[in-house]
Amino acid sequence: MKKKRLLVDMDHVIVDITSQYIKWYKDATGTEIERSELLGKPEDLAFPQPRLIRDFLHMPGFFRNAEVMPGSQDVVKGLNELYELFIVSAAMEFPQSLIEKYEWLGEYFPFITWHQIVFCGSKKTISGDFMIDDHFKNLSNFNGEKLLFTAPHNINTHLNGYTRVNNWTEVKGLLLKNLSYS
Amino acid sequence: MKKKRLLVDMDHVIVDITSQYIKWYKDATGTEIERSELLGKPEDLAFPQPRLIRDFLHMPGFFRNAEVMPGSQDVVKGLNELYELFIVSAAMEFPQSLIEKYEWLGEYFPFITWHQIVFCGSKKTISGDFMIDDHFKNLSNFNGEKLLFTAPHNINTHLNGYTRVNNWTEVKGLLLKNLSYS
Repeated sequence: MKKKRLLVDMDHVIVDITSQYIKWYKDATGTEIERSELLGKPEDLAFPQPRLIRDFLHMPGFFRNAEVMPGSQDVVKGLNELYELFIVSAAMEFPQSLIEKYEWLGEYFPFITWHQIVFCGSKKTISGDFMIDDHFKNLSNFNGEKLLFTAPHNINTHLNGYTRVNNWTEVKGLLLKNLSYS
Repeated sequence: MKKKRLLVDMDHVIVDITSQYIKWYKDATGTEIERSELLGKPEDLAFPQPRLIRDFLHMPGFFRNAEVMPGSQDVVKGLNELYELFIVSAAMEFPQSLIEKYEWLGEYFPFITWHQIVFCGSKKTISGDFMIDDHFKNLSNFNGEKLLFTAPHNINTHLNGYTRVNNWTEVKGLLLKNLSYS
């Protein structure tokens, strides 16, 4: 039977980019922002000095040194057996991130081959059966099942047609254990 | 009316990568290979020392310094007005090419924004109405109209379901002038 195609986002999904924002923000300003302060705010306006956050996105090492999202490695490894899995990241806005994201994937997800990586600007050309993403703008054009991965910026938004997953244990329950779903 | 989506490949389509192979091969070996010697041979076996060609693909500057395909700039600029245009390149096998291809596009196609660029391994996740590509492997999974751009390696192959275009004047005739087609 043909495997179903699963598209997995990077930032906020397999990359713990929130912790990286908080860490770099503290290093730059001395101020430690609590995760709770970020809830429900747009990603680029959540910190007291939002311009700093935008600057980080263009700075060498920001993406390369981010930590992996807890639980993502084992579950993605299992999903990679059952599904035709692609990593799809809207990396093109930050061109220096391209090689950093590629190398980061090699470190944390070495079982993902180059055939399975897509770096784009817009995700509207990408088709598949399931997409896991933290941004409505990426999911809204998608033709398959939309799984909204919880991130601080999307915590308060509720829209029809999206299945919210709060962590990788929930993704596992939905896509690995619940075989009737896949 | 919603614009139709047009996907345009890079190497052999808007990038004159054949001339770059010939130039680098001559610089490395002193031997000048004629374009006619390449006709009908698989891209990676066409030169007397094919391993050199594979090496070039991993070397800094190979993609960045390639020349633009004659006629492509004006026609792509016109197509960019009429279509929802994306540049889609299978760049992921050669990760150092990612930033080189991004910068190359900025030099020769400055009107293409980062939203319109897709770098991937496989093109099978990408959907649209028209795809211009020199490789059957990229076109074969495509759900829209398949335009095979002539390159030395594909010159003798004829398959049903593909429209061959030999140069950018022919693309213009098909997609810009022939409005009933678009």
